[in-house]
Amino acid sequence: MNEPFEKNDIKIAVVGGGTGSFTLLSALKNHTKQLAAIVNMVDDGGSTGVLRDELGVLPPGDVRQCLVALSDSPKIRDLFNYRFEEGTFEGHPFGNIFLTALEKMSGSFNDAIKTASEILHVNGMVIPATLDNVRLKMEWPEASVILHGERVIGADYFKYDPRRAILSLIPSATANPTALSAIEQADVVVIAPGDLYSSLGPLLVIDGIAEALKKTNASCIYVSNLVTKQGQTEGFSVNDHVKEIERFVGAPFLDFVLYNQQIPTEEVATRYKAENAYLVKVDKIVLNSAPYRAIAGNFLGELASKNKADVLLSGRSLIRHDASAVARAIIDIYNSSRSGKN
Amino acid sequence: MNEPFEKNDIKIAVVGGGTGSFTLLSALKNHTKQLAAIVNMVDDGGSTGVLRDELGVLPPGDVRQCLVALSDSPKIRDLFNYRFEEGTFEGHPFGNIFLTALEKMSGSFNDAIKTASEILHVNGMVIPATLDNVRLKMEWPEASVILHGERVIGADYFKYDPRRAILSLIPSATANPTALSAIEQADVVVIAPGDLYSSLGPLLVIDGIAEALKKTNASCIYVSNLVTKQGQTEGFSVNDHVKEIERFVGAPFLDFVLYNQQIPTEEVATRYKAENAYLVKVDKIVLNSAPYRAIAGNFLGELASKNKADVLLSGRSLIRHDASAVARAIIDIYNSSRSGKN
Repeated sequence: MNEPFEKNDIKIAVVGGGTGSFTLLSALKNHTKQLAAIVNMVDDGGSTGVLRDELGVLPPGDVRQCLVALSDSPKIRDLFNYRFEEGTFEGHPFGNIFLTALEKMSGSFNDAIKTASEILHVNGMVIPATLDNVRLKMEWPEASVILHGERVIGADYFKYDPRRAILSLIPSATANPTALSAIEQADVVVIAPGDLYSSLGPLLVIDGIAEALKKTNASCIYVSNLVTKQGQTEGFSVNDHVKEIERFVGAPFLDFVLYNQQIPTEEVATRYKAENAYLVKVDKIVLNSAPYRAIAGNFLGELASKNKADVLLSGRSLIRHDASAVARAIIDIYNSSRSGKN
Repeated sequence: MNEPFEKNDIKIAVVGGGTGSFTLLSALKNHTKQLAAIVNMVDDGGSTGVLRDELGVLPPGDVRQCLVALSDSPKIRDLFNYRFEEGTFEGHPFGNIFLTALEKMSGSFNDAIKTASEILHVNGMVIPATLDNVRLKMEWPEASVILHGERVIGADYFKYDPRRAILSLIPSATANPTALSAIEQADVVVIAPGDLYSSLGPLLVIDGIAEALKKTNASCIYVSNLVTKQGQTEGFSVNDHVKEIERFVGAPFLDFVLYNQQIPTEEVATRYKAENAYLVKVDKIVLNSAPYRAIAGNFLGELASKNKADVLLSGRSLIRHDASAVARAIIDIYNSSRSGKN
């Protein structure tokens, strides 16, 4: 598990772990066989939360989805995402149970991922950002809160401005050395679109991750979220997102920011509204003078399936990037930076 | 799934499904790569019973154990037998959940077994005796009972002599054609040691199985149980077991019967007694004049592990054959019948 990259191809490390990561990984695997998915480990909702609480395992949900995104075996992929619809196991995706059984049996989440990767014929590597069993803590001068159950991060906890909150993990977490190697050895590091405070933040504040991001020679690209999140990032512009990401890391490190300029159809906008999600604002003047290079694209994807049970159980949004377009833009950046160097 | 035997080796079909089958399969795989395990499908206790009741699937437990017995992959084998010790999944072996998820997803138990066989690197084939979802019915002239939950077959139901009971499945079951092919194409058919009324009987009375057993050119060998079962086969001799098996099939079909002649140590006898199990009686005079050839051997094995939770949850006895000795005796029979033919 110590060498994230082995083949002769573009080395891309995708940092994140939520839906934004899965869809991006699925698209990027058409461009390179050298993908490392570095996964946030504070997920604590739904099936993952139950398994963590009952069995003390590390969160399997996002790891499972990254494995599935990188799998070459359609049948086993479907099995891993199969969610029991009734009975004792209701709501649990099979892959979560699989990772949990393997971790309980072997005592190692890394071993569990390794075995699952073999069975799923995974191209690339899925790397937990830390192997410590941690929860997210948010602290304001006025209050502090430890988040138990990811979905607890609701409006209540955001009555204070999250931009003033200090994020940390408890107990304090050490980065997985393989995650650090992946960031250091990558040609491109992508900060995937995802929730700032429940997904990207808790990953970026892990001891060691920031250092690796500052040190790497990789082109660092942030793919900005399409929409804001109710009660958390309301009114945030593209640059507001960037500022928070760089605040978590403690220094400017982004070379490129990909943002969406496409206007949704009225039908799609209505669906966004149903999720209380609004397009992230694009402030051209700010972006033009930013220290990173901001690149616009038409990145709106189809809305995800309407399977209500799935959305409710997983707490996932229906809103998706056009991951193929984003992947092409990332590869374009890599190619131009290479031709620039030649 | 239609060709049970493919390689150039002794073809052995093992008919049964309980602990007697698993241990015998594990030993026989050292002698041949062409093993077909034909599995009883009325199991309804423990984890299997819960999964059948809640999700309407076919019984995974015995199939799982046969798969594990034939697996060449130690790590995945351990995973399949891993039993959750707490929380929502307590008591469920992972392999049962695996087979259940696959069956629910694909709609086919056969497909589930095929995928599991690939992942487990199974040598040979595990074949459900029927693909119908059935329960066992026992009928006496005075009463009848439908058994829901295998462990319900307790003393209460045996206040009438089981030897007068008519066994049938409800709804009526059709044999799996692959099971019939395996019996017809085998060089040796082994009726594994197992419970007469909850395991072997319900398999042998499936429409089509008896015909296949009468028609096959294979040497048919019954490996007699070591001990009697409280409230079911108390006082049964070796020949009493044989008579019941042939009654289920409707005709004499056995060529050989292997029975144990070894006397247990005092320590082992005490443990048998704790299970209310007593050595099956050997009536030499009857056996010497029987239409089958009765072959004695020293077949007492070590007692199984004392893991109490496992025994309670699975309802399995601790008493085991020396499966290696039984396997050698079976291969000896095959070799002498071949040299006789030359």
